[in-house]
Amino acid sequence: MKALVTGFEPFGGDGVNPASEVLKLLPPRIGALDIATRVLPCAFDRVLAELADAVGELRPDLVLCLGLAGGRAELSLERVAINVDDARIADNDGGQPIDRPVVAGGPAGYFSTLPIKAAVAALREAGLPATVSNSAGTFVCNHLFYGLMHLLATRRPGLRGGFMHLPYLPSQAAAQPGAPSMALADIAHGVEIVLAVAAAQRDDIVAAEGAIS
Amino acid sequence: MKALVTGFEPFGGDGVNPASEVLKLLPPRIGALDIATRVLPCAFDRVLAELADAVGELRPDLVLCLGLAGGRAELSLERVAINVDDARIADNDGGQPIDRPVVAGGPAGYFSTLPIKAAVAALREAGLPATVSNSAGTFVCNHLFYGLMHLLATRRPGLRGGFMHLPYLPSQAAAQPGAPSMALADIAHGVEIVLAVAAAQRDDIVAAEGAIS
Amino acid sequence: MKALVTGFEPFGGDGVNPASEVLKLLPPRIGALDIATRVLPCAFDRVLAELADAVGELRPDLVLCLGLAGGRAELSLERVAINVDDARIADNDGGQPIDRPVVAGGPAGYFSTLPIKAAVAALREAGLPATVSNSAGTFVCNHLFYGLMHLLATRRPGLRGGFMHLPYLPSQAAAQPGAPSMALADIAHGVEIVLAVAAAQRDDIVAAEGAIS
Amino acid sequence: MKALVTGFEPFGGDGVNPASEVLKLLPPRIGALDIATRVLPCAFDRVLAELADAVGELRPDLVLCLGLAGGRAELSLERVAINVDDARIADNDGGQPIDRPVVAGGPAGYFSTLPIKAAVAALREAGLPATVSNSAGTFVCNHLFYGLMHLLATRRPGLRGGFMHLPYLPSQAAAQPGAPSMALADIAHGVEIVLAVAAAQRDDIVAAEGAIS
Repeated sequence: MKALVTGFEPFGGDGVNPASEVLKLLPPRIGALDIATRVLPCAFDRVLAELADAVGELRPDLVLCLGLAGGRAELSLERVAINVDDARIADNDGGQPIDRPVVAGGPAGYFSTLPIKAAVAALREAGLPATVSNSAGTFVCNHLFYGLMHLLATRRPGLRGGFMHLPYLPSQAAAQPGAPSMALADIAHGVEIVLAVAAAQRDDIVAAEGAIS
Repeated sequence: MKALVTGFEPFGGDGVNPASEVLKLLPPRIGALDIATRVLPCAFDRVLAELADAVGELRPDLVLCLGLAGGRAELSLERVAINVDDARIADNDGGQPIDRPVVAGGPAGYFSTLPIKAAVAALREAGLPATVSNSAGTFVCNHLFYGLMHLLATRRPGLRGGFMHLPYLPSQAAAQPGAPSMALADIAHGVEIVLAVAAAQRDDIVAAEGAIS
Repeated sequence: MKALVTGFEPFGGDGVNPASEVLKLLPPRIGALDIATRVLPCAFDRVLAELADAVGELRPDLVLCLGLAGGRAELSLERVAINVDDARIADNDGGQPIDRPVVAGGPAGYFSTLPIKAAVAALREAGLPATVSNSAGTFVCNHLFYGLMHLLATRRPGLRGGFMHLPYLPSQAAAQPGAPSMALADIAHGVEIVLAVAAAQRDDIVAAEGAIS
Repeated sequence: MKALVTGFEPFGGDGVNPASEVLKLLPPRIGALDIATRVLPCAFDRVLAELADAVGELRPDLVLCLGLAGGRAELSLERVAINVDDARIADNDGGQPIDRPVVAGGPAGYFSTLPIKAAVAALREAGLPATVSNSAGTFVCNHLFYGLMHLLATRRPGLRGGFMHLPYLPSQAAAQPGAPSMALADIAHGVEIVLAVAAAQRDDIVAAEGAIS
């Protein structure tokens, strides 16, 4: 069994991105699961082609995409991707789509096919702050998440995939008054836990992790 | 032209809900737009039937549903409803569905068909804090929003509709340390603005109101 | 019995300040309490002289100074003023003292002599969000609060005084994503309540309104 | 040269406290500075006697007291201790003083005599989120901080001391939705940096680290 884990290059003026830094710390295998990694560009118009290439080349069973959610304190297992690009800032190519669908004619949304609540439970059990999130935003992270799920739904029906948002690294938060962060080693530990849970079970647990609003 | 505006009864132990209180302050007409209002139950298993009854009876051109988002500081124009119920607490009938679709076999999501960015711009112009929100949660608010959009998409194709989340009233926030709130008169003013904008234009403006994450 | 209520002119690029706007809404009398108001400059090097002039001229029994605390959601009754100026931004005269005492040789701090917990209780009872705050910052607000208490302690022993921080007005919050606010009428109502409580009782109530950290 | 570093035992139902856990990770020496540690009780009526005993026995040149500030994301160098106990919850002995002075007849406040801005600058330089805080609360942390500074001012004039608040550990934040945290190794690294800075310089740097409100 093989997992592809992707992370974004830095964006928005940051010199570093935990989503790509963490890839360097992942082991080549977690139990019976082989781990392959790819750094992806933070660019609306290139990221999905690179993802498709990596999936085509590596033929993974699981895909976990990682991105930075500056300002969040917890590892966030994203529940749903939505079919809209709405960029508050420009991406690394200068692209800034507004209210454009990720995939013209695609469905309004896709749900993660990873066991996100089981992952959250395992992360907390390991002493790591984690949550289910109901929005991956409308920037390149959601774009990639939607594109991934569309790829799996339309061309790779046997694959499962999802997206996890990461907090700032402490070194990033040091420059942003009041911002929460998480140590890179803890983020790496969290990614390993999510991969192990996803490899071990297809069905999610029943747990109230919803949001009132 | 006629608008139906709905608001929820109190829930979760609160004695009051701005979403129903505000209905009492709305005028019967805003320009050429007639306003009808309905208080809806905060109950997964009853709210959509009552909504459908009201739409069938009143035959509005626009439907704006209102709900409380305790903890938010701004009037929140919701962008998307998702096809999942995941209740952290019980509703007013004791119902607490977990990871159940709002509509079995329905699409993963529906986008609001109100001009939400034009509404946000008009609200700010009027001095009211407002934002586009990318998640209406997974409780009865999202359930109603999804059910509304499904009803419009499948049985009332000419109608337009959407959802707005409201902050606590000051009297509610007085019991919750640190919670933001908004005066009822300002909420009512905001609802009128959103209705006027929705009545005046079908197409939204182009404005970067997206979220990075 | 007479109260002096002061508010700051706008600062930091804002065109308006609730602390001066609210003065226009106060009645000339609250019960047996005469109300006089003064707008004060947001300037370290001028504000205390203007305060002393107003106190000397008006000879009030109570002094309540008001200031803006952008980002707070509640009316904040300040508990303590500290003997330090540490300005993150320049004041309206371009002054930006760093780690300079408000009064050279003065005590490290002064406690409010208003019944702040009784005021908080009365505000909440009236449906207004309110709290005891343990820091008035280190900008002109704290400077004025310290200077007021030093004046009372050293030259006007019969007078009582204190400071209340106010949230943004909604029109200010409309320009600051996510910021909480309070309607001007509610702020004015709150100021009247605080004045009435302060006029009615010298001793505070016993209530746990402390902060863990 | 010798430093005493103190940390509190767990309180408020927590099974662990970063302020005592971190003591186990400190080295016996940092450069020429010898490090002694003490765990102190989270109890208003006992903590100052134990602090005085430790200072009398160990005769340190520097005292750095540590405490938990659950909900803060940064290492917080406290600027000022105030002469009031106001407990929102009971301490570990069941004590809950309200509006009682820490030291009857003591001054309203004491400023830290550690170079807090130099420490913040060094922490950020090392990639750790840090800030100057203007309130240590009104619970046992502020009580200890005030008691420490009173002890130094009245009986140990050559000693310098101060207080630093710490974020939750990740394992604590895992049980508190949305709460920020910091890895224990990063906290320990931060404590070492603060001690090294305090040992190296008596005077603080000039830097604008104040708060508007």
